[in-house]
Amino acid sequence: MTEKTAYNIAVVGATGAVGKKIIQILENKDLPINEIKFLSSERSAGKKIPFKGKEITVEAAIPDSFAGVDIALFSAGGSVSKQLVPEAVKHGAVVVDNTSAYRMDSDVPLVVPEVNQSDIQNHQGIIANPNCSTIQMVAALKPLKDAYGMERVIVSTYQAVSGAGEKANGELDAQINQYTANEEMQAELLPVKGDEKHYPIAFNALPQIDVFQENGYTFEEMKMINETKKIMHAPGLSIAATCVRLPIFRSHAESIYIEVEKEGLTVTDLWNVLNDADGVVLEDDPTEQIYPTPLSATGKEAVFVGRVRKDLDNDKGFHIWVVSDNLVKGAAWNTIQIAASLIQNKWL
Amino acid sequence: MTEKTAYNIAVVGATGAVGKKIIQILENKDLPINEIKFLSSERSAGKKIPFKGKEITVEAAIPDSFAGVDIALFSAGGSVSKQLVPEAVKHGAVVVDNTSAYRMDSDVPLVVPEVNQSDIQNHQGIIANPNCSTIQMVAALKPLKDAYGMERVIVSTYQAVSGAGEKANGELDAQINQYTANEEMQAELLPVKGDEKHYPIAFNALPQIDVFQENGYTFEEMKMINETKKIMHAPGLSIAATCVRLPIFRSHAESIYIEVEKEGLTVTDLWNVLNDADGVVLEDDPTEQIYPTPLSATGKEAVFVGRVRKDLDNDKGFHIWVVSDNLVKGAAWNTIQIAASLIQNKWL
Repeated sequence: MTEKTAYNIAVVGATGAVGKKIIQILENKDLPINEIKFLSSERSAGKKIPFKGKEITVEAAIPDSFAGVDIALFSAGGSVSKQLVPEAVKHGAVVVDNTSAYRMDSDVPLVVPEVNQSDIQNHQGIIANPNCSTIQMVAALKPLKDAYGMERVIVSTYQAVSGAGEKANGELDAQINQYTANEEMQAELLPVKGDEKHYPIAFNALPQIDVFQENGYTFEEMKMINETKKIMHAPGLSIAATCVRLPIFRSHAESIYIEVEKEGLTVTDLWNVLNDADGVVLEDDPTEQIYPTPLSATGKEAVFVGRVRKDLDNDKGFHIWVVSDNLVKGAAWNTIQIAASLIQNKWL
Repeated sequence: MTEKTAYNIAVVGATGAVGKKIIQILENKDLPINEIKFLSSERSAGKKIPFKGKEITVEAAIPDSFAGVDIALFSAGGSVSKQLVPEAVKHGAVVVDNTSAYRMDSDVPLVVPEVNQSDIQNHQGIIANPNCSTIQMVAALKPLKDAYGMERVIVSTYQAVSGAGEKANGELDAQINQYTANEEMQAELLPVKGDEKHYPIAFNALPQIDVFQENGYTFEEMKMINETKKIMHAPGLSIAATCVRLPIFRSHAESIYIEVEKEGLTVTDLWNVLNDADGVVLEDDPTEQIYPTPLSATGKEAVFVGRVRKDLDNDKGFHIWVVSDNLVKGAAWNTIQIAASLIQNKWL
């Protein structure tokens, strides 16, 4: 059996916000791709997408689409993943799934390569890509936990509308136009597409991302809590989240309070760890007004950290501000990193 | 000596964002006003402002402006207050100052009437109105502290541009227009007028409100920390703040984590206290997607609280979401409440 040197890739949800970003990043990276196919709903099938000098026609995703596919990257929503991921696996593909469908399954690795790359090798056909708000948080927290231990995390998020898909971008855009035209703002989608009530997002802050759970937390908040424990292999970590949608198109920000185990640390100690961390860029100089913002992070692959401060009352407490592009590191880039790791490490 | 039954009031900074709001609220309340005068910088003097059926001409504020004034409401910035508040006091006026100039002075009461009204009577001519982000937080925290004790507060804010004055509103508005016209957004004011660098606020989040202090915290963050301890008479309270400016015109939101002293409390226990609290309105029903937002709070006098959740790891930990109009309760209405209390309690 000769070893493969190039792979057949399928992008499922190729016409969505994350799918488009995956294609755009793949075009600029040198993954050893043999064939690539773009899959979508029937509605979007037939569209043509340029890729490395060719025009590729989008096909409707059906079970047989995955014949001969080595790696399938799914970003078409939870219901599509529930239906088609098992079919892709049956056809022998390894799936990187960018929905919440399989993330908490015990036999599915949930991976941010900078944090727990080696978990990938335990896959049984499916590797899950974490929630966007989780990815950027654990990328910043893991090196700090490794260096100094970690007991407590409290996060409040500042999340962009693109986390709710292309149509949410359109809704913010439409409301901005309604505002400039002195018309009443129309809300039909946010905070949650399938939920009963909708509120304007322009010039507003909605403390609801995804649906409410019985315990009063939203599903987004529970995703951040449960996924973080799984990715960081820290079931006993105390972690709380409050997730808020804002009138920002791209990139999530997070105000995070952490309690480390080690005593007597300084801001410089944390800076040193963050400076050396894979995939993390420290942007933190109050004297020069340097800190990351959603606009400054957009389009970039890194997770940016700034505003590192020691708590004024708790010697083990620190505050940090973490920003990253929710469509890049928070979705497409992390998915591609997992695919690249599968290939490089021959973990297919 | 006959007792006064009507008072001479001066509004300093009458043409600014807060001054306008003070005049608007005074027009709809029945404070016993004898004469009212509107004061401003020389630049704005001569403007006419309608008030209860009359047209009142704005005068340039000078020391002699305060002759015969009983209560002077200052909202013209810290440097104006530093210059003219002592002059007003010399002329026998009691000053309610809505700047940071005197807030931490030990002989100046810092007051949110629902929280520490009785402190007003200790005034020596000046009562300070707290920072907008502090006012709404302490209004929600004080009843909880009284009922259950309080050990720890960690707050992340979601603050509107109007907290930086009328011109900041204009800057967001201009950037929105530049966006819709496909022009580059121009930043000349935010995050801080006098600071070196300026960043766009539209579709962005700026983790800097007011200038950085030597300890890495911003002045806004230190205001929230120090003012909260003073207003709540809680010098030992552990409190941390991260303050963030957002593309929202009006009303601040706050994600607040608290640790109470009492064990075994439920969300219902906190709801009961908040429902009975003066000036606080509970809007909290996840099953009906009910929670306060900046748009829903704008123009109202109350402090709105929602998203009350018990921490999943700490029995004494709770999370709340607090929203209020930064120009109304956060500034103008609180100022007028203090003035009304001075009159009603004869504390002049």
